[in-house]
Amino acid sequence: MMSKPKSALQQARAAYQPKLPKALKSGRATLQAGEVVKPAAHAETIAQLFPNSSNMPLMTIVEGDKPVGGAPLTVGVVLSGGPAPGGHNAIAGLFDALKAANPASRLFGFLGGPKGVFTGKYKELTAEVIDEYRNTGGFDMIGSGRDKIETAEQIAGCEKTLTELGAQALVVVGGDDSNTNAAILAENFMARKVPIQVIGLPKTIDGDMRNQFIEASFGFDTAAKTYSNLVANVCRDAASARKYYHFIKLMGRSASHVALEVALQAQPNYTIISEEVERRNLSLGQIVDDICDMICRRAENGRNYGVVVVPEGLLQFVPEFKPFFVDLNKLVHERKAELDALPDKAKHKFVAEHLPGHSGELYRSLPETLQEVLLITDSHGNLTVSQLETEKFLILTVSARLEELAAAGKYKGKFSALPHFFGYEGRCAMPTNFDADYCYTLGYAAALLIAGGVSGYTVSARNLAAPVEDWILGGVPVASMLTIETRKGKEVPVIEKALVDPDDAPFQAFAAARESWKVEDAYVFAGPVQYFGPSEICDAPTKTLELESKAKRFG
Amino acid sequence: MMSKPKSALQQARAAYQPKLPKALKSGRATLQAGEVVKPAAHAETIAQLFPNSSNMPLMTIVEGDKPVGGAPLTVGVVLSGGPAPGGHNAIAGLFDALKAANPASRLFGFLGGPKGVFTGKYKELTAEVIDEYRNTGGFDMIGSGRDKIETAEQIAGCEKTLTELGAQALVVVGGDDSNTNAAILAENFMARKVPIQVIGLPKTIDGDMRNQFIEASFGFDTAAKTYSNLVANVCRDAASARKYYHFIKLMGRSASHVALEVALQAQPNYTIISEEVERRNLSLGQIVDDICDMICRRAENGRNYGVVVVPEGLLQFVPEFKPFFVDLNKLVHERKAELDALPDKAKHKFVAEHLPGHSGELYRSLPETLQEVLLITDSHGNLTVSQLETEKFLILTVSARLEELAAAGKYKGKFSALPHFFGYEGRCAMPTNFDADYCYTLGYAAALLIAGGVSGYTVSARNLAAPVEDWILGGVPVASMLTIETRKGKEVPVIEKALVDPDDAPFQAFAAARESWKVEDAYVFAGPVQYFGPSEICDAPTKTLELESKAKRFG
Repeated sequence: MMSKPKSALQQARAAYQPKLPKALKSGRATLQAGEVVKPAAHAETIAQLFPNSSNMPLMTIVEGDKPVGGAPLTVGVVLSGGPAPGGHNAIAGLFDALKAANPASRLFGFLGGPKGVFTGKYKELTAEVIDEYRNTGGFDMIGSGRDKIETAEQIAGCEKTLTELGAQALVVVGGDDSNTNAAILAENFMARKVPIQVIGLPKTIDGDMRNQFIEASFGFDTAAKTYSNLVANVCRDAASARKYYHFIKLMGRSASHVALEVALQAQPNYTIISEEVERRNLSLGQIVDDICDMICRRAENGRNYGVVVVPEGLLQFVPEFKPFFVDLNKLVHERKAELDALPDKAKHKFVAEHLPGHSGELYRSLPETLQEVLLITDSHGNLTVSQLETEKFLILTVSARLEELAAAGKYKGKFSALPHFFGYEGRCAMPTNFDADYCYTLGYAAALLIAGGVSGYTVSARNLAAPVEDWILGGVPVASMLTIETRKGKEVPVIEKALVDPDDAPFQAFAAARESWKVEDAYVFAGPVQYFGPSEICDAPTKTLELESKAKRFG
Repeated sequence: MMSKPKSALQQARAAYQPKLPKALKSGRATLQAGEVVKPAAHAETIAQLFPNSSNMPLMTIVEGDKPVGGAPLTVGVVLSGGPAPGGHNAIAGLFDALKAANPASRLFGFLGGPKGVFTGKYKELTAEVIDEYRNTGGFDMIGSGRDKIETAEQIAGCEKTLTELGAQALVVVGGDDSNTNAAILAENFMARKVPIQVIGLPKTIDGDMRNQFIEASFGFDTAAKTYSNLVANVCRDAASARKYYHFIKLMGRSASHVALEVALQAQPNYTIISEEVERRNLSLGQIVDDICDMICRRAENGRNYGVVVVPEGLLQFVPEFKPFFVDLNKLVHERKAELDALPDKAKHKFVAEHLPGHSGELYRSLPETLQEVLLITDSHGNLTVSQLETEKFLILTVSARLEELAAAGKYKGKFSALPHFFGYEGRCAMPTNFDADYCYTLGYAAALLIAGGVSGYTVSARNLAAPVEDWILGGVPVASMLTIETRKGKEVPVIEKALVDPDDAPFQAFAAARESWKVEDAYVFAGPVQYFGPSEICDAPTKTLELESKAKRFG
């Protein structure tokens, strides 16, 4: 393999040795079994679905008596879903731990996501490959994909591939659904005594795969810091040019953790948190009125500029839009053949005609461009929201409301707005020290769970606001994190997405401060991610993690 | 003034002491007069327009015999046009140099751009104010504006304000037009023996105010590096997800220096350089064919993803669009009253009906959204291009061409594209070490030119690819950089914009390498701007400056 051209920073980062927690670094790590944690709800159903893998203890990795070693292992690793900074380090940590235990161990990477497992597409990850990708962003070492390992056929395909490889274990790097599917695969293998372990790693920049066992999903730190820097730069621009309102959409399909973290870091004038909208049952009109109230107050102070942050998933949390999305999804699925036969420009007219009741009224009231965008589907035919230009829609709605206010003599400012969407520029950023260390640690821990013989576990990580050496790694049975949800009319086990809880410390800190950010500019500039400076700059955790840790959310 | 909340990096950067060239640091700097450089063209006309300020020598700041000192000075400073990283450091350098020469000197900042000068809006910039903004991005210390000092009334207003302040000098921080206007003001004051000097500083992130005397305009370094990081992140995302083509528009209304620098840094698959389009007289069809050719070749290698970089000003360089923009501008000005009376949604229909000949045909052939966007005007009623969604327009055009190719059996790939625009997130970024040092140095040099008694000069800077201590600072008479252009039917003096020259080293390096970037992925990841690491990471100049320096473009 020819090495690719590298920048000076890439060369320096290639040499960075991620920090490891004490127990893992010792070379004598071992698993210590702890209590058995029952799912918070639906424990019986879950026990029935996972008879072999639901009654397992938490595992903690501790320093043991003898060096890690044993027979050589063959392990496969797969990346699932959207990229997140640090994925390559997860693989590097796994590789290094396997080799440290036995240099004859081998690691294979499945290509293009889960499909690579059940169709048998892989490559061996040698030291040469791994070294090319240490501390880099992206998932391009082996690619990723959105396929899932769900059907009997797919599970059989996985078994065939892994058996032919002689693999003892599969590591699945993914979000909540991928970890659930990893548990289903593990249960299936355990039930049929197939000697292949399955271990999951918690990945998502959205930060919504978190709970008492897993304090952070990897990639969130880097992505949120990357966006915070950009949002703060736009705040500075707003205050310098003093003529634009910037409406910035940030990634986060369900949870608003990214938006909240950016708000805490950069302190833009206004940030919408979807979960608060839902909790307080705020209508779109109320949200718009509140933004307009701020714009009016700023105008009175001569400030016809500002920054509004909007989470990608917002509209799905607005009460009047919730039944709307259900109806729209239903229509798109039921009338798929008719819609597919129509030219792109005619589809929204068909939908406008056929969408029933209030949903139809709402749809017809939207600007045509939004009507069209709402109909964009992904490769599975599902409606997508990331291309939904919520930021532009809000600009239009706010602008219309301001015109009414101006006509009533209640607003004398000038409103000129620009839309932004920060997403793809952060998902593959070079990982921060935190994510570089964290992902490496997660991968390293996965190897130790494999060596410890367990299956159906997700790597758990606690005490993450402390220095790396004090982090507590281990494994949590996926079943302990499961609940039952109805999806597409079927009851299925899922790991509940950790949404922003308005009662938790991060939101509370935001809520306590935000009034003062609206009228005065209190912008804070975290700056671009740093790798070489003082530790308080280079190694700081996210505000979310810091506040949660202080509030002892994670006992 | 209450100090605002600051991040850890802000606190560290506040303490950063910018480096100064040897001669400036010595405390014994003095001016050395050099040769008189005549304008390259229209020398006689310019001599007539600038009888007092056109026959002046180049000035170099050298280490002299005696300490800089003298009577206290009162100086005003104004920021003009779009923000660029480092503006605050230019003011800090000016302040420190004035105070070093005589602690009783005073500096005033005009608020909201040139209008602040002729309407007398200003504030004193004390140490407390300056210290709050050292090494920060943005222009928010005093704001900026796009007004110009042009009319007799405006010039009289400036004189009044400056005289009442007791100011001996005005420093104008701006681009080519602002520096030209600074020269006109200087000439006016010199002709009438008004004892106020005027000095210009070269600012623009577009990098187009450059020549043999001024190797770089400030802000370009930071902005180009900020965009390079983001573009490289998107390249990594493209290669990880393997399903999207990203079309990224970058700032640069006329010149493509930013796009070229980003191409040299990040090596995306395809970068359009407007100046090459003009030089080779490429039609839109030819550009689209060339992009499609790359997409077809990549598809054959299983790569249905990639990154295309598009300079903001592109369409104005495409032959068939040039007369179109002239006709469109004419129509919009001549029929302003009728257009203003129409509702927004009806304007493009009016234009489609009334635009004559080929321009009308072209306009009617465009997608409706683009027709509308083309009619957006700025506060002066001029058409704007930064909101022209060239990237979306290209996606539509490329997509249509690929459908034709697929129908003809020449393309078997999948094309899914996403548009991006990187602009506002880079104009106010925290300055790189280069821009922090460079701007501080420029401001410091401005004070020395003032102390040296000259007027009608722009601060010049050479040898910028060398370590800071070896930079050569001085002043170049603005008149020496002028030429005559016809604008709005009038012959006026202007500083010619330095566009990308396809014969120069940076473009040549790009042209020599780009074929290999199209099919193979040769992405390079410069990463986020660093402040604390090894010098080759933190202090490196742009590739543009490095290549030009090696080619000895600037003797």
